[in-house]
Amino acid sequence: MSTDKVQIFDTTLRDGEQVPGCKLDTAQKLVIAQQLDSLGVDVIEAGFPVSSPGDFQSVYEIAKLVKNATVCGLTRAVKNDIKVAAEALQLAKRPRIHTGIGTSDSHIKYKFNATREQVIERGIAAVTYAKSFVEDVEFYAEDAGRTDNEFLARVCEAMIKAGATVLNIPDTTGYCLPEEYGQKIKYLKENVKGIDKVILSCHCHNDLGLATANSIAGVLNGARQIECTINGIGERAGNTSLEEVVMIMKQHPYLDLSTGINSQLLYATSQMVSDHMGMPVQPNKAIVGANAFAHSSGIHQDGVIKNRETYEIMDPAEVGVTESSIVLTARSGRAALAYRAKKVGYELTKLQLDEVYCEFLKFADKKKEIKDTDLHHIMKRTNVAIAAVA
Amino acid sequence: MSTDKVQIFDTTLRDGEQVPGCKLDTAQKLVIAQQLDSLGVDVIEAGFPVSSPGDFQSVYEIAKLVKNATVCGLTRAVKNDIKVAAEALQLAKRPRIHTGIGTSDSHIKYKFNATREQVIERGIAAVTYAKSFVEDVEFYAEDAGRTDNEFLARVCEAMIKAGATVLNIPDTTGYCLPEEYGQKIKYLKENVKGIDKVILSCHCHNDLGLATANSIAGVLNGARQIECTINGIGERAGNTSLEEVVMIMKQHPYLDLSTGINSQLLYATSQMVSDHMGMPVQPNKAIVGANAFAHSSGIHQDGVIKNRETYEIMDPAEVGVTESSIVLTARSGRAALAYRAKKVGYELTKLQLDEVYCEFLKFADKKKEIKDTDLHHIMKRTNVAIAAVA
Repeated sequence: MSTDKVQIFDTTLRDGEQVPGCKLDTAQKLVIAQQLDSLGVDVIEAGFPVSSPGDFQSVYEIAKLVKNATVCGLTRAVKNDIKVAAEALQLAKRPRIHTGIGTSDSHIKYKFNATREQVIERGIAAVTYAKSFVEDVEFYAEDAGRTDNEFLARVCEAMIKAGATVLNIPDTTGYCLPEEYGQKIKYLKENVKGIDKVILSCHCHNDLGLATANSIAGVLNGARQIECTINGIGERAGNTSLEEVVMIMKQHPYLDLSTGINSQLLYATSQMVSDHMGMPVQPNKAIVGANAFAHSSGIHQDGVIKNRETYEIMDPAEVGVTESSIVLTARSGRAALAYRAKKVGYELTKLQLDEVYCEFLKFADKKKEIKDTDLHHIMKRTNVAIAAVA
Repeated sequence: MSTDKVQIFDTTLRDGEQVPGCKLDTAQKLVIAQQLDSLGVDVIEAGFPVSSPGDFQSVYEIAKLVKNATVCGLTRAVKNDIKVAAEALQLAKRPRIHTGIGTSDSHIKYKFNATREQVIERGIAAVTYAKSFVEDVEFYAEDAGRTDNEFLARVCEAMIKAGATVLNIPDTTGYCLPEEYGQKIKYLKENVKGIDKVILSCHCHNDLGLATANSIAGVLNGARQIECTINGIGERAGNTSLEEVVMIMKQHPYLDLSTGINSQLLYATSQMVSDHMGMPVQPNKAIVGANAFAHSSGIHQDGVIKNRETYEIMDPAEVGVTESSIVLTARSGRAALAYRAKKVGYELTKLQLDEVYCEFLKFADKKKEIKDTDLHHIMKRTNVAIAAVA
């Protein structure tokens, strides 16, 4: 059965990089852009060119470097922003300008002190002007998550008429629940004239831990682009995690959705971004955390040793992790102890295992993790005549 | 309008603590248990008493200490596990035994080498035996996420008959999508005789980043307990984050769901658990990450300075964070610079601000973050006659 392709729009270098402590220099950005291109993302949002001379330079260099992905620059609905972005993108093989304006009542009133009609006019002007430089223009309706659907549909229709090729529906504040966000996308698919000529894009924030679920709800309801970052970095609690949405689609083939991502590069890419930004990935981060494939409880270890699929839904190798670890702690059982003991050279009988396990627990209650050197020590103490396999 | 109470079952000290590197000693566990009790969780899963002498001791001491919450001990469907758990819980004001067995075909075949009927029988025996010690018995159908719904309903019905008070439906491998998990709970609500006499509980893992969304889908379909951990720690990619599900229900009052959690203690509790376990919380972690309320891009900072709600859906004080930060980076705009300059004593005219902003950008392109001391330096260099407000 043929699957529908979902475009992966990576904004690690824009929405990710604007975070406290995540700043990168141009050389670092080039290394990461190259890796994103190898990873197979469809769009690289390279920066916000008008924001600073350094960012302009980075977008310019990335546009020159990248071979496969579309390279995109962010702007406000401001003429000079768009002009500067077009300059920065001039050497891109596939340039895209990403422009837009806030559409929620809160943004219209407090940010722009404007009316709904004025906001639509500014949007049209921005898209039209961007089209004078590039063919591919994405429009963002900022705070779409809190924008009423009827008005949002009017905005979308106007931007399609003005020439937008992609419509970005951001849940800027990370407030939506998955069903609500999915319904919003569905409403637009059903009520906007010309919607089938453009791509709807999900841009979700993780303030309530729902960015991934919201993006998936979006594509299940007709969106065909997800904006995301490596490790889910980004403003506040971050953006949608690229690695999570990609693996959800891959692990649920019945959804008939696919991406162009080479998942085996996910772990290496995660590490590269974390290292360059000095931004730690917590051990319990899905897919790319240090513990994502580590089993430590006795019940789980026993299961995994008998059959990997008992507790693992994906093969770690699929995301570039070389093997799932069996880590020995006070919560480990006999099966794990025997497994690791054998790996370091001790073949134990059932009786020996009982004895060694008692000694192991005394140790493990005091230590966080029992390493191979501890195992040798424990074997000695139990005084069992265990011949280490040469 | 009255809201339905959702019980918060915290398993930081059991499913959280069994993780590589997260081991705690009894004294540390007591401090955290006390904090969880103050936080207002309904159930504290204190450990897996049979797993080691140290864990037994911890459960025993926690049971003795905790005043308000139910204290729960984990067991397999094994007589000795249950007997030992009952001993460990003997001083609890509200003791609960949590017993169960794998119900998916994969678990039945590879873990137990048994049949479906045998698994039901073992479950009944375990619940019945646990009931001989305590009134409150929770049954877990391990790997319920991959168990076929019809068989799962049969298991649930049998356990209700045997006396279970809570039925835990774990997505052990973190595979389910929110709609699928919600439908599972709905199916059980509609097809299990006696289901209204017991509480259905969601226990979700985060392997694909969906634990929070799945738990919310569960309560929207009739579950009334969520099993979760502080900071989402736990086996592999961890469990559902307590702070996320609590704040989702609090921030969406139209769901008519509430918890007994004092949200203002969330941040302190997160820090306490992270410190004791030596388990870092990534800066972009929802609710409790260091950046969860930090704004750095110019567009966002400008919005927040004009009106907090433009980019923030919750007041940081609600979760115990003292204020949202405006961090100066190369992506910051004039509004943020003026705001912070004023805070450190410089009131700038529009012209002065333009001049200072140029100098600021040159600095910011080189540094990750511009601190107050840098600001003073920048002011000096611009050579504008700016009088620092005394």
